[in-house]
Amino acid sequence: MAVFVYKFGGTSVGSVERIKAVAEKIKKSRDQGNHIVAVVSAMSGETNRLTGLAKEIQSSPNNREMDVLLSTGEQVTMSLLSMALHEINCPACSYTGGQVKILTDSMHTKARIREIDDVKVKKDLDKGRVVVVAGFQGIDEEGNITTLGRGGSDTTAVALAAALKADECHIYTDVDGVYTTDPRVEPKARKLDKITFEEMLEMASLGSKVLQIRAVEFAGKYNVALRVLSSFEEGEGTLITYEESEMERALISGIAFNRDEAKLTITGVPDLPGVASKILCPVADKNIEVDMIIQNIADDATTDFTFTVHRNDYERAKKILEDICSDLGAKEVTTDDTIVKISIVGVGMRSHAGIASTMFKVLADEGINIRMISTSEIKISVVVDEKYLELAVRALHKAFELEQE
Amino acid sequence: MAVFVYKFGGTSVGSVERIKAVAEKIKKSRDQGNHIVAVVSAMSGETNRLTGLAKEIQSSPNNREMDVLLSTGEQVTMSLLSMALHEINCPACSYTGGQVKILTDSMHTKARIREIDDVKVKKDLDKGRVVVVAGFQGIDEEGNITTLGRGGSDTTAVALAAALKADECHIYTDVDGVYTTDPRVEPKARKLDKITFEEMLEMASLGSKVLQIRAVEFAGKYNVALRVLSSFEEGEGTLITYEESEMERALISGIAFNRDEAKLTITGVPDLPGVASKILCPVADKNIEVDMIIQNIADDATTDFTFTVHRNDYERAKKILEDICSDLGAKEVTTDDTIVKISIVGVGMRSHAGIASTMFKVLADEGINIRMISTSEIKISVVVDEKYLELAVRALHKAFELEQE
Repeated sequence: MAVFVYKFGGTSVGSVERIKAVAEKIKKSRDQGNHIVAVVSAMSGETNRLTGLAKEIQSSPNNREMDVLLSTGEQVTMSLLSMALHEINCPACSYTGGQVKILTDSMHTKARIREIDDVKVKKDLDKGRVVVVAGFQGIDEEGNITTLGRGGSDTTAVALAAALKADECHIYTDVDGVYTTDPRVEPKARKLDKITFEEMLEMASLGSKVLQIRAVEFAGKYNVALRVLSSFEEGEGTLITYEESEMERALISGIAFNRDEAKLTITGVPDLPGVASKILCPVADKNIEVDMIIQNIADDATTDFTFTVHRNDYERAKKILEDICSDLGAKEVTTDDTIVKISIVGVGMRSHAGIASTMFKVLADEGINIRMISTSEIKISVVVDEKYLELAVRALHKAFELEQE
Repeated sequence: MAVFVYKFGGTSVGSVERIKAVAEKIKKSRDQGNHIVAVVSAMSGETNRLTGLAKEIQSSPNNREMDVLLSTGEQVTMSLLSMALHEINCPACSYTGGQVKILTDSMHTKARIREIDDVKVKKDLDKGRVVVVAGFQGIDEEGNITTLGRGGSDTTAVALAAALKADECHIYTDVDGVYTTDPRVEPKARKLDKITFEEMLEMASLGSKVLQIRAVEFAGKYNVALRVLSSFEEGEGTLITYEESEMERALISGIAFNRDEAKLTITGVPDLPGVASKILCPVADKNIEVDMIIQNIADDATTDFTFTVHRNDYERAKKILEDICSDLGAKEVTTDDTIVKISIVGVGMRSHAGIASTMFKVLADEGINIRMISTSEIKISVVVDEKYLELAVRALHKAFELEQE
């Protein structure tokens, strides 16, 4: 008998009607002879409601108590889903993270899973019950309630699948799979049947917000077959798995992009050892996350240093650079918050040369100026003016024939 | 240092503003050097909201899952109160029933407390923290979440006070104490400074809904000094305690009444052994609770049998009696659902004769016909037509001089 872990996000359990629909979906699979563990998020809107209450009391709520508060969201959903299963004569039992138990460290609001005790869950599965588990939450060694941070329910599902050695972990969401690119930008975007963990990680980190990065990392590490599906439509979704020989044929799996970046450059920096850290340490000290980093030699004695940050951090980063510019003996600071990053992702790059030059030629043919380039083993990213985003994505999608199977 | 357990009901924590006020009240007491454990209910309205969700899914929700669902109500309050305490620099820590842990039996939706582990709470108190505990809930031996049923938060507070050997257990509510009778019926009703456990039990069971009966029983059994106070006004409230010599002076402590009763009589029943059980067993089989029971001999061979039930059960009880009437060889069934029960309660009755006759004379002087009489050691109850309720209560209140200290 196959064991499946199904995860249903906030939208999928956003109303009583949707919870009933989820119960029907689970029952159908169970009737086919499968063992099912269902991991649920809080009903959509609930987390915001609770956060709102907390903020009325403390502008910066106590982290431990915030976890106590927020963890009630999933607890409500899990009991309602279990009731919906009982209502259609499907035996079920719900557990909080603490009850399972999902042991985490004590970093409240962003805890990490250390260990999962699968005894209770297995016992219930053996009795033919569907086990409903609250996502996003756990318990530390002292018995305090912890939460895993935004999107933590995906991580709960994958960790449970790993612990139970489940056949597949299904992430039910409001999209029906992973696409070659955002269909709102390129209507010809095609749903992928398969994608590798590495590709998914690159896609996720670049703004394809289907899955949490931590969940994908976890799935990759413990070799959990992950499938992204729609909770509203039928379909096979997209399977995220290890690279297989047949997959090598695809050069590029998808095009990801990120509209939220801003670019900062400090020019004419004396090219001495330690200059990079002198620039980036003050930025990191202010908890600003840096994405792309590029350093180019301008002439024999000086260098130009460029990096990108989230647009929310743009003004603060700019201020920091301007403050250190003269200390470094640099020339000037130039910045731009009207840029986007576009990346092509694919494991096929490993074994095929010339993909980068194809990408650059496609953009050049469209008259798009490339402002920055950064590459990794399975990804090539470029920074361009934001006005070119749609044009660039569509041209690349066509050039790499992503609309075709 | 004194240890106090404070319990705040749903109205007392019904909004963010009220939770902040409760936090101030707690801090004030802590600043006076007291150790405080605060037991909280769900915010008013929340239990109904959750029950509504459940009923949309299951007309008769699964009991285990209902407990999982409802227990989130107190969990939300406890985290918000703990945050409110942090906000005013009062160290605090919140625990669910399971975290404490409050061990109960496995009777979901009406579990009973078996044992309280006070290690965690004591440790926090010793560190100078206010401990906020979710009322109404516990955990069974298998780790399932249980709830204690309506008003269970009072029981949690008393049980915690017993376990911690607290100096007093304060029940904060929306009234400022226990009154000699309902002030809406007799405006001269006076707040009592003290009342005995036994009197409080009789008052509570007769419709003075200030405290849960189970909580009072528990407090009596474990000798927990219980105090009922208003969470909105200052004041000493009413202390519920063991009988003391000074209290013997009061003949009557209060007048309780119950508008929800109906009376059923079966007349001309052959007076044979076992007849009472033949009448009451079919009633009990239908889960109808019987309150007063009176049997009178009509003549040598037959008897009249009368009992009262809650008005909600009136029609069903009537049907049962009519069905068994001919089997019993009885004459007829007469019923009345326009009656009320009025009781005078006081430990003074034990040592003073003539209280019953005073009561009957007062009612006779007002022209009120007594339909049934029942007495216990510290209580005399009469059933009268409901139209006489106010008249009877006011006359008795005056006759027993309850408006005077």
